[in-house]
Amino acid sequence: MENKLAVGIDIGGTSLKGIILSSDGRSSDFTRMPTEAAQGGHKVLENLLKLIGIMLEKSGDLAAVLGIGIGTPGFIDSAGVAGGGSENLPGWRGTPIFQEVQKKYNLPVTGGNDVTLATLAELKYGVGKGIPNFVYFALGTGIGGGIVINGKLYRGSHGMAGELGHISVDPEGLPCNCGQRGCVEQYASGTGIVNLALSMSAKNNRESPFSKLVKQNPGAVTAELVYHYVAADDPVALIVHHRASRMLARALGITVNVLSPDMIVLGGGVMKSGKLIIETVDQYVPEYCFPEIYRHCTIAKAKVGENGGALGAAIRVFDEFSSLEFP
Amino acid sequence: MENKLAVGIDIGGTSLKGIILSSDGRSSDFTRMPTEAAQGGHKVLENLLKLIGIMLEKSGDLAAVLGIGIGTPGFIDSAGVAGGGSENLPGWRGTPIFQEVQKKYNLPVTGGNDVTLATLAELKYGVGKGIPNFVYFALGTGIGGGIVINGKLYRGSHGMAGELGHISVDPEGLPCNCGQRGCVEQYASGTGIVNLALSMSAKNNRESPFSKLVKQNPGAVTAELVYHYVAADDPVALIVHHRASRMLARALGITVNVLSPDMIVLGGGVMKSGKLIIETVDQYVPEYCFPEIYRHCTIAKAKVGENGGALGAAIRVFDEFSSLEFP
Repeated sequence: MENKLAVGIDIGGTSLKGIILSSDGRSSDFTRMPTEAAQGGHKVLENLLKLIGIMLEKSGDLAAVLGIGIGTPGFIDSAGVAGGGSENLPGWRGTPIFQEVQKKYNLPVTGGNDVTLATLAELKYGVGKGIPNFVYFALGTGIGGGIVINGKLYRGSHGMAGELGHISVDPEGLPCNCGQRGCVEQYASGTGIVNLALSMSAKNNRESPFSKLVKQNPGAVTAELVYHYVAADDPVALIVHHRASRMLARALGITVNVLSPDMIVLGGGVMKSGKLIIETVDQYVPEYCFPEIYRHCTIAKAKVGENGGALGAAIRVFDEFSSLEFP
Repeated sequence: MENKLAVGIDIGGTSLKGIILSSDGRSSDFTRMPTEAAQGGHKVLENLLKLIGIMLEKSGDLAAVLGIGIGTPGFIDSAGVAGGGSENLPGWRGTPIFQEVQKKYNLPVTGGNDVTLATLAELKYGVGKGIPNFVYFALGTGIGGGIVINGKLYRGSHGMAGELGHISVDPEGLPCNCGQRGCVEQYASGTGIVNLALSMSAKNNRESPFSKLVKQNPGAVTAELVYHYVAADDPVALIVHHRASRMLARALGITVNVLSPDMIVLGGGVMKSGKLIIETVDQYVPEYCFPEIYRHCTIAKAKVGENGGALGAAIRVFDEFSSLEFP
């Protein structure tokens, strides 16, 4: 059988990422360029089209390319128009993504939410392979989510399901830019953990090496820094870790009671340094669900990593534009 | 084609209900007898076996009966043993339901959680017919739930999914007998509404005909009574109604963000008198989810009613023990 190719693109707040996936299941030519999000939606589109051009050239065989898959933060409707939930791409909402790409390259275009597509990559290549029902929490700048039901990505009738970062774990809690209060991403995303570190260090009477550092240079605090100090048993960093883990456990518990997943996958940038989160969250989850249901669920770290969005976008191309049974 | 029959049984805290469903889609011989739950699990089992005997006799054609379906409160494992979550049936946990029925009647036995089966009935005969993705909240003594994904009942790998009544809407709130705090059933079930009525009438400085009545005879308060006074614009009854509706809206909002359902079905005893709940909850839900997702969702009242559990149990018999495409 002739080898077919798919181009997958992931639009991130910082970088655009591209990948080429072959019908034999191998991916190659991972490419990255700056999003230049601050220059507005038009610039992002310009860069997106540029990266697609580069990827098509790298493919070496335009006739073999089945189509282009695009992952974007936030919502995207079935016509490929960017919707809400993409706050870190100012001016992106309303961009007719599919139409613009189709116009320029005359190839079939598909796509979806970036984390939904990363979930698809986790299902086909990652820790979710062979798992019938799982949920994916991507702990990044915000928290994105994805759901797999009966071995298939579940997107809902309008491609919008899986907003797991906006499960409210404290309805009177911190305001979220989605309009709700107490969304789990306010506590357990990278941004949430940094904010917890700032407030805990300001409030807490206990002095610690970590809280001293935070007060000296609040602008330099990252989730990675927090977990560096957690590893050193810093008492204030540990308070931040336990608070973030408990709030995350509440959201996980809700997904356990609702979906009874076989697995909860935790991924995203925070998990690079915060491996400890799995162990701690696992202790808290039974307080926030039926332990009888949770008994059948394990928490696992995502495997595919930062290429997940682009890879998932390319997988989607095969799913939609070919009858190939993808390996 | 020869007509086949299924017996469906619903084990309720007060009544056992039986139904006979024919492969032409018609149901008949609805029968009810007391559960006598207070006399313990053995008595419930004795009554269950008795009712099955009555239903088999009513079928008139034992050879046409494909099997027996049983709906039970709480969990039931794949071998048909009752698990947790059935607090209103003391001594029921651990009963090997399928095995006992099989031993006595030598017919195939299946079953599941009562509300999960009522969701199946709603999907085949009710307001959920033709709806790809919906969630069902049964507002009864507690709150049960069911989930339909891609036109099929979703039960999770272990038949335990859909515990929508135990979505926590206030993690620091009222303790629930499931072990969590602030479960939505503590506020929006029949019991929850009565408890709100008692506490609001005790606390509130505002006097009203309703609060007077509650203080005089707290034992006579029911959700139906609350909604009788809501209809008359009683100010304290209205506070209870809005509080219950807001808490319910929080749980509904979470299911919207997670599953993006096309429909939320509200059923159960509370909805007999509380039709107003739909209207009020519909106003609150957008505060607790992405309005952009909720735009694609409608709230509807369940249609099948109190026979849903037994009917769903009978439908399950056809699904499992025949290759008939059920009408």
